[in-house]
Amino acid sequence: MPTSASSRPPLDLTADSVAITQAICDVPSVSGDERALADLVVDALAGAAHLEVIRDGDTIVARTNLGRDRRVVIAGHLDTVPINGNVPTRFETIDGQRYLWGRGTVDMKAGVAVQLKLALELSDPIVDLTWMWYDHEEVSAELNGLGRVARHRPDLFAGDFAILGEPSNGRVEGGCNGNLRVELRAYGLRAHSARSWVGENAIHKLAPALERLAAYEPATVEVDGLEYREGLNAVGITGGIAGNVIPDEAMLHVNYRFAPNRTVAEAIEHVADLFPEYELTVVDEAEGARPGLDDPLAQQFVRAVGGEAKPKYGWTDVARFSALGIPAVNFGPGDPLKAHADDERVACDQILSCERALRAWLTGAA
Amino acid sequence: MPTSASSRPPLDLTADSVAITQAICDVPSVSGDERALADLVVDALAGAAHLEVIRDGDTIVARTNLGRDRRVVIAGHLDTVPINGNVPTRFETIDGQRYLWGRGTVDMKAGVAVQLKLALELSDPIVDLTWMWYDHEEVSAELNGLGRVARHRPDLFAGDFAILGEPSNGRVEGGCNGNLRVELRAYGLRAHSARSWVGENAIHKLAPALERLAAYEPATVEVDGLEYREGLNAVGITGGIAGNVIPDEAMLHVNYRFAPNRTVAEAIEHVADLFPEYELTVVDEAEGARPGLDDPLAQQFVRAVGGEAKPKYGWTDVARFSALGIPAVNFGPGDPLKAHADDERVACDQILSCERALRAWLTGAA
Repeated sequence: MPTSASSRPPLDLTADSVAITQAICDVPSVSGDERALADLVVDALAGAAHLEVIRDGDTIVARTNLGRDRRVVIAGHLDTVPINGNVPTRFETIDGQRYLWGRGTVDMKAGVAVQLKLALELSDPIVDLTWMWYDHEEVSAELNGLGRVARHRPDLFAGDFAILGEPSNGRVEGGCNGNLRVELRAYGLRAHSARSWVGENAIHKLAPALERLAAYEPATVEVDGLEYREGLNAVGITGGIAGNVIPDEAMLHVNYRFAPNRTVAEAIEHVADLFPEYELTVVDEAEGARPGLDDPLAQQFVRAVGGEAKPKYGWTDVARFSALGIPAVNFGPGDPLKAHADDERVACDQILSCERALRAWLTGAA
Repeated sequence: MPTSASSRPPLDLTADSVAITQAICDVPSVSGDERALADLVVDALAGAAHLEVIRDGDTIVARTNLGRDRRVVIAGHLDTVPINGNVPTRFETIDGQRYLWGRGTVDMKAGVAVQLKLALELSDPIVDLTWMWYDHEEVSAELNGLGRVARHRPDLFAGDFAILGEPSNGRVEGGCNGNLRVELRAYGLRAHSARSWVGENAIHKLAPALERLAAYEPATVEVDGLEYREGLNAVGITGGIAGNVIPDEAMLHVNYRFAPNRTVAEAIEHVADLFPEYELTVVDEAEGARPGLDDPLAQQFVRAVGGEAKPKYGWTDVARFSALGIPAVNFGPGDPLKAHADDERVACDQILSCERALRAWLTGAA
């Protein structure tokens, strides 16, 4: 009996990258369910003599071993957020622009399609290449396939520069901001609200913290030539026991997105300095990533794909590379504002221009 | 077969009021379960020729019809909050003071015991008397027996002055503060917190409201000679969607306890004036009650029971009388801070002194 994967038509990586995008979007691969797609990828690359293919769970690494001076890692995740009636994909034309519509088209199967096509095609690139397609990006960090492979086979992460195919409208977005979430707590004294003067209102004690947040002017910080815009925000607030009780505890949940010139430890110190009178509990932390655009290889890449690099604000897996000492950027087709949207859709032209730009750089034609 | 009520020993209202308190505490009467006690009360008063006894559910009204110039209503509730291992009652001596310990001793069977004893005993008071013992005080207002009888038999509420036997340490506590709860809402614009400048943080918009609350100096207002201390407090606060989302809505729950010189409408206006920039929703409102201590009958009562009248801060059923145009005060044995407490207990001396004071006033001996 054929398996679910083998019953599907094989992937044709000689097709154009728009067709490949459609083909791999129509193989559902919500996080945890990447196997069928991973099987197709392995099968499609099996005949390529220039590639060493390694599989770890549903993560596939394919690399050249051409003895080049420098090695570039190019990665993309195979999984998507849950489908919401938007698979299979279809083509739509809006204002004369042709789009591929459906789950995964933006985040990030268009980027993966470009990578798969070039992985098979480029048998003689000017740098050695390590391609990585991984599982479980859209769920909790512990499950992330890239993290798992980094634990199992850290040697596969050797490289001088990394490109993550996350949607960036076909522009280079360097590094990413760090992310910190803390809970600030104020304490008081419980009392019946008919005799409030006997108590001490913990919610009222959050007033200075909210005031400071409302007045806070987030910095814009230049790192390696890119300007990172920070943000400091309340993302939650709770307090209160009953309609007739003066509350003795209140909590303010604060999110700090900080430029990658700061470490998490420095970010915590900054927040602690801003709110010295509260009990502070760190609930989430992630280092940012410097864009690493001072590296000549990176500068060459930015010039090759055209235009100016921009900072990436959201946290992405480039930070994993950064933590391993590999400068990393995001570069992929698709508008990031359409990622996870029910009307997720990618402009077909963007897929093709990303394909051309990446090919030109990797073959020395740019 | 005897019913549950008739299987109990009858109430002996010629006993002293401490013994009566113990007897009626040991007949459990948590809200909704007052029947057995109500049956005993009806039976105990049945032989009193000077009383007309009317029953409505588990509320009993007993009144004299002596043709006196003035009529005083004296009321108490039969129900208690749930028992928590503190029935049957027992006597305890602490620092040389004798207490009756157990659920209901303070709130408010000691007060009811004094009333029951005097109802039977005083066949020739100087004013006509309407005694009321009612059900469902400790639960939602719609179930309140006093409210039900006011709807069924408003004529029974005729009177010039009312005394509610709620615990007040044997002092006269006049009227009560009004109570208002409102929800204040701020709105913003949802956005990913990695690009917070695209959104508008609704939680931050609560900063001025919290500041105003923290800085607010509640008034102390003299009404009919008593000083009512007000309170304006946050009793709840909520906001936030997820750790990475700029929230587009936040809510602050505010409780205003206002002196009885203001109406609910005026209290709402005051709060609306304080927080003009927020959407305001009234979620609970209760008029206060003026103490009515300008009435000579009330002044005579205060003098008779000794000492000075105090304001009552918490909302009590005196407000129901006040709403019907009858000045009303609280007067009963027991420390209100022990009401609902697991170590609820009343000083036996307080029960007896309340009994003596009320008798003296009602017989013209004071």
